[in-house]
Amino acid sequence: MGRLSTLFAPERVAVIGATDSEGSVGRAITSNLLESFDGEVVAVNPYKEEVLGLRCYDEVGDVDAPERIDVAVVVVPPNVAVDAIREAGAAGIDNVVVITAGFGETGSEGAARERDLRAAAEEYDLNLVGPNSLGVMSTPKGLNATFGNEMATEGDISFMSQSGAFVTAVLDWAAERDVGFKDIVSLGNKAILDEGDFVAEWGEDPDTDVILGYLEDIEDGEKFIRTAREVTQDTPIVLVKSGRTDAGASAAASHTGAMAGSERAYEAGLEQAGTLRVESVQELFDFAQILSGQPLPEGEEIAIVTNAGGPGVMTTDAVGDSDLSLAEFEDETLDRLGETMPDEANIYNPVDIIGDAPAKRFEIALETVLEDDNVSMAVVVACPTAVLSFEELAEVVVEKQQAAETPIATTLMGGKSVGEGQAVLSEAGIPNYFDPARAVDSLDALRDYGAIQAREYEDPATFDVDRERAREILESAARRDTNRLGVEAMDLLDAYGIPTPRGGVVDSPSEAQALAEDIGDDVVMKIVSPDILHKSDIGGVEVGVPPEEVRDTYEDLVVRARNYQRDATVLGVQVQEMVDLDSGTETILGMNRDPQFGPLLLFGLGGIFVEVLEDNTVRVAPVSEPEAREMLDDIDSAPLLRGARGRDPVDEDALVETVQRLSQLVTDFPAIVELDINPLVATPDGVQAVDLRLTLDQEEL
Amino acid sequence: MGRLSTLFAPERVAVIGATDSEGSVGRAITSNLLESFDGEVVAVNPYKEEVLGLRCYDEVGDVDAPERIDVAVVVVPPNVAVDAIREAGAAGIDNVVVITAGFGETGSEGAARERDLRAAAEEYDLNLVGPNSLGVMSTPKGLNATFGNEMATEGDISFMSQSGAFVTAVLDWAAERDVGFKDIVSLGNKAILDEGDFVAEWGEDPDTDVILGYLEDIEDGEKFIRTAREVTQDTPIVLVKSGRTDAGASAAASHTGAMAGSERAYEAGLEQAGTLRVESVQELFDFAQILSGQPLPEGEEIAIVTNAGGPGVMTTDAVGDSDLSLAEFEDETLDRLGETMPDEANIYNPVDIIGDAPAKRFEIALETVLEDDNVSMAVVVACPTAVLSFEELAEVVVEKQQAAETPIATTLMGGKSVGEGQAVLSEAGIPNYFDPARAVDSLDALRDYGAIQAREYEDPATFDVDRERAREILESAARRDTNRLGVEAMDLLDAYGIPTPRGGVVDSPSEAQALAEDIGDDVVMKIVSPDILHKSDIGGVEVGVPPEEVRDTYEDLVVRARNYQRDATVLGVQVQEMVDLDSGTETILGMNRDPQFGPLLLFGLGGIFVEVLEDNTVRVAPVSEPEAREMLDDIDSAPLLRGARGRDPVDEDALVETVQRLSQLVTDFPAIVELDINPLVATPDGVQAVDLRLTLDQEEL
Repeated sequence: MGRLSTLFAPERVAVIGATDSEGSVGRAITSNLLESFDGEVVAVNPYKEEVLGLRCYDEVGDVDAPERIDVAVVVVPPNVAVDAIREAGAAGIDNVVVITAGFGETGSEGAARERDLRAAAEEYDLNLVGPNSLGVMSTPKGLNATFGNEMATEGDISFMSQSGAFVTAVLDWAAERDVGFKDIVSLGNKAILDEGDFVAEWGEDPDTDVILGYLEDIEDGEKFIRTAREVTQDTPIVLVKSGRTDAGASAAASHTGAMAGSERAYEAGLEQAGTLRVESVQELFDFAQILSGQPLPEGEEIAIVTNAGGPGVMTTDAVGDSDLSLAEFEDETLDRLGETMPDEANIYNPVDIIGDAPAKRFEIALETVLEDDNVSMAVVVACPTAVLSFEELAEVVVEKQQAAETPIATTLMGGKSVGEGQAVLSEAGIPNYFDPARAVDSLDALRDYGAIQAREYEDPATFDVDRERAREILESAARRDTNRLGVEAMDLLDAYGIPTPRGGVVDSPSEAQALAEDIGDDVVMKIVSPDILHKSDIGGVEVGVPPEEVRDTYEDLVVRARNYQRDATVLGVQVQEMVDLDSGTETILGMNRDPQFGPLLLFGLGGIFVEVLEDNTVRVAPVSEPEAREMLDDIDSAPLLRGARGRDPVDEDALVETVQRLSQLVTDFPAIVELDINPLVATPDGVQAVDLRLTLDQEEL
Repeated sequence: MGRLSTLFAPERVAVIGATDSEGSVGRAITSNLLESFDGEVVAVNPYKEEVLGLRCYDEVGDVDAPERIDVAVVVVPPNVAVDAIREAGAAGIDNVVVITAGFGETGSEGAARERDLRAAAEEYDLNLVGPNSLGVMSTPKGLNATFGNEMATEGDISFMSQSGAFVTAVLDWAAERDVGFKDIVSLGNKAILDEGDFVAEWGEDPDTDVILGYLEDIEDGEKFIRTAREVTQDTPIVLVKSGRTDAGASAAASHTGAMAGSERAYEAGLEQAGTLRVESVQELFDFAQILSGQPLPEGEEIAIVTNAGGPGVMTTDAVGDSDLSLAEFEDETLDRLGETMPDEANIYNPVDIIGDAPAKRFEIALETVLEDDNVSMAVVVACPTAVLSFEELAEVVVEKQQAAETPIATTLMGGKSVGEGQAVLSEAGIPNYFDPARAVDSLDALRDYGAIQAREYEDPATFDVDRERAREILESAARRDTNRLGVEAMDLLDAYGIPTPRGGVVDSPSEAQALAEDIGDDVVMKIVSPDILHKSDIGGVEVGVPPEEVRDTYEDLVVRARNYQRDATVLGVQVQEMVDLDSGTETILGMNRDPQFGPLLLFGLGGIFVEVLEDNTVRVAPVSEPEAREMLDDIDSAPLLRGARGRDPVDEDALVETVQRLSQLVTDFPAIVELDINPLVATPDGVQAVDLRLTLDQEEL
């Protein structure tokens, strides 16, 4: 257990701001604690002698052995909250839950107050929850340090929420259902403790089987990815990250002041972190339920057993929509089904044991398909009939599931008749839904999590690069006081082993001539100036220049630059070997920085593919070799890299390596805030970075 | 009301095969009828004197005034079912419901029996439901002519299902909920009456507000589209069409022998028919509920009113995912909210009236936003708090919804606290969900249906074409006994006013020469032979032939064809003006025939777009001008037609007209079973059909 363990399993809890005023938050918390907490509650309030039968202390430091208070819950008004936190810290208390609102969520005065709060917490190295939190709960010790109406029942789900209201909603909802919790935390403004901390804590908690979260932002993407990757090797994390859409993001910003990173960064980062991201509350709890109740499947092949053809087809459609596949049965299975099922039955998957099936027939069919090595999971879909007892069916399903240790979900398709069967299934951790699509989606989530657990996170490769040379190039740009670099920085790529066409930037006609002769063929010449963004538009690019015309062309290019802007800084002219664009495929490899996740790599095919069809993919850097390779698979136009329509397949390994080398470059130099290699030409024999633009943040150098 | 009205509102119902044998279907139907039917039940069974207190007749013809029996329900064994149907027909009964199974769903003997049954029904012009049906229900008269366990409660939803089991599941589920039905029919094998007939019937039924269907196939796509278009002007149709996925389609085929047309044809056809197609059972009933309970919105702008920031963000995300948009409030609304809401509230949409809001504050906020002309619908999202009564809130919502006549859905986000509020809302037809995404999706469905009602179905344009010439071209191919035509049929397009490059097919070098001179420029020459599919591969195409080389090239092409296949039929050589492919955009316009929906047009951009990116769209022909235009909008690569990346926009009107002209051609000639114009080159000045392939079914000529 981590350093937060006493937050959720305290012996003594102090309420700073305890009161008995009717309808107050301080009273609600004190009375919630008194109601079920298996430990000592201490009341602190200088204006009260006694609160709800508890002696009231003036300050937390006045309590006997205050350092043995495990958690201080702060409910005082905002103007005295920071003092209360300092007192708690000074008294030697480790964990503080700040219920008080009126901080970062309320404008500049509140923001200043939150800075003070953070400073106080850091001074005393406090584990601080909030401010603006509903509180924390933990069922094993009956801890309800919240001001909600409802205490959770015990279970194996731990849940964090950036919305306190959502916690109250979930508790009210769960009170009617068989959904139990281990710990619950309302994150509030996350001044100190954030989602990464709780993920780490619950990852080490043997009583937490599933971690759920409702988040509006992630404070530190890099920390979250690192922590979550480790935790999800044992414990699944299912998240709603809201503010997914533009409208949602701006609603989130105005609600909590959540600083929205780009949705694409969240999408990539949460996936790379190994979390299961869901879009709706329904999925959040559907997935939690199956993850906590059922074992992981060994494959993706599903068997469907039903007494009803139509619902069997609906279920099959749901399988078609998922990443699961219909199991193909072994001959032995078909033989046994053929012997035991009626003639009218369909013994192929989906197995339709027809409308007159009693529970016994389900039992035989289910047992048979579960014994098939090609079956990794099963869904039982039953419609009510005169001969079928849903309760008996549920008992059969539980027995067979437990014997086979194969995950199962059920669809008892009804309402009135379902109650008792549902209870039997629920007791055994088998999820049941009216809609077969939910049963299949839940099993699919189980498979997803199995795939995450099976992931091997490779470390990003470290190539042997010339980091010093790269630094010099960036520093020399900084000395010229320029933030935008172009082809004059191509050497930067070269320093990191990214192939570029032969050539370079020269600053005299004679050097240009010499370089062209060295190249020994027609060349491309481009004016190099930070003041000229669109070179072609001013005649600043000449293609196919024969060596003998290089001198004159140099002069022409400079004249055109001066004509365009008299005082343009001209760094010289780039002379480059011709790259045959027709023989290769133009791709784009770029990077920008996300406020939460840092460097975000982008890959796609050039031209219309990125610009019109928006066919590209992103990953948070640094990326490992498998992650870089996945980027190539991700795009719809991937077949064009692989020889579609009679092309020669490009050298994918070279592309993958280039992605990793760029990842290393942008990770090494936070000063590079934006970078585009466009085009990066991929051919059957390798790649070449033909053009480059990047933006520097000199302060990071 | 249509000719089926007596099926659902009979005075007298006969059960042919009535029995009191315990556990039998005949007994279940007889006793279900006796239980609640407000009319006379007549029992027919030659082996019984009396059944469940009813006198039993040997034959239906023996009953007094048998022609006044409105419905005969047939439950006799399959081998005597057709005789029973004939008897019913001979006795003058109009409606027959065949419960008996053992027909088309069971192999060749059953299929033969189903043919006999259909012949008998047609002979007597019977309205026949089934065979292999669970039966029919209609609540106003308490008619339960099914063998299920449950009678529906009265409501305004009529429901048809190709799965009988699904009917029993839905009834069992609805028994626990406030979901009522007008009519229910289990379609069975649809030997006579199909989904189109029931859609037509319910479209004229004032007591049916919403039509729901579970279908595995559609018998007659053209009839269904025609009927549904008319019905959906007044009554929404919500459908699950299962067998959407490949796996689902083959499951459906093995289950009911449903003849699966292509999923793309269903997708296009059901959309063109104006139905709302859903993928899950949950959506089916969510949409039914809101469509039957709420008025249609006047726009797509939604207001969100909530006491909880986080759930407000989730709701906003759901809006972002939908086709709805967040309403921007008028100044007056903002002023009034500013005056009436607390300072901490967010008065912009989503309106967050914060956690201490009682029902009264919801009332003011809701009333204010509903008065805003920019607000077409609202969703109220409430988390449980100490100061809010969900029941009071529900009353407020109902009152404001009824006053404003603006559609509303709610999210009372809880479980335990929701019951009474839910009941109040449900009584008033306001749907409530825990998950805000479902509330928003339901409102979105309401908007979708509003858009469908607002559609004006234009008749397909009829262009002035040379139909006789087209027929001659097809007939001359038939005389050559060939099914596959290529460029030699380009005149077919010309006859229908689809522009083709100048040129034609000639059968001598001198004619080729003359034609090239007439064109007056370099030409393209192609061998024309039904035996040579890939002309380029055998050197059968020459591009850029100057007029003076046309004679020799003619001879060369014929020699190459003979070298490839000595006995190849050579129809001649096509001589065509050069089309500058670079200056235009290559598109593909094609057609194939779907077994259910008939001619299906396909449009997309040529090359990688259709072949690699699968970016194309289909419509059932004939298409109207707006439908043809939509096809251009549908594809992802549409921007490339409209001047993306510095291209000149193509002549869209010419493309739209060409789609319509092809639609007319393939509608006029069912003999054309497949056709591809590839490429159809679109330029800023028009279009040109450069190449053509088609397949004929000579029997249809």
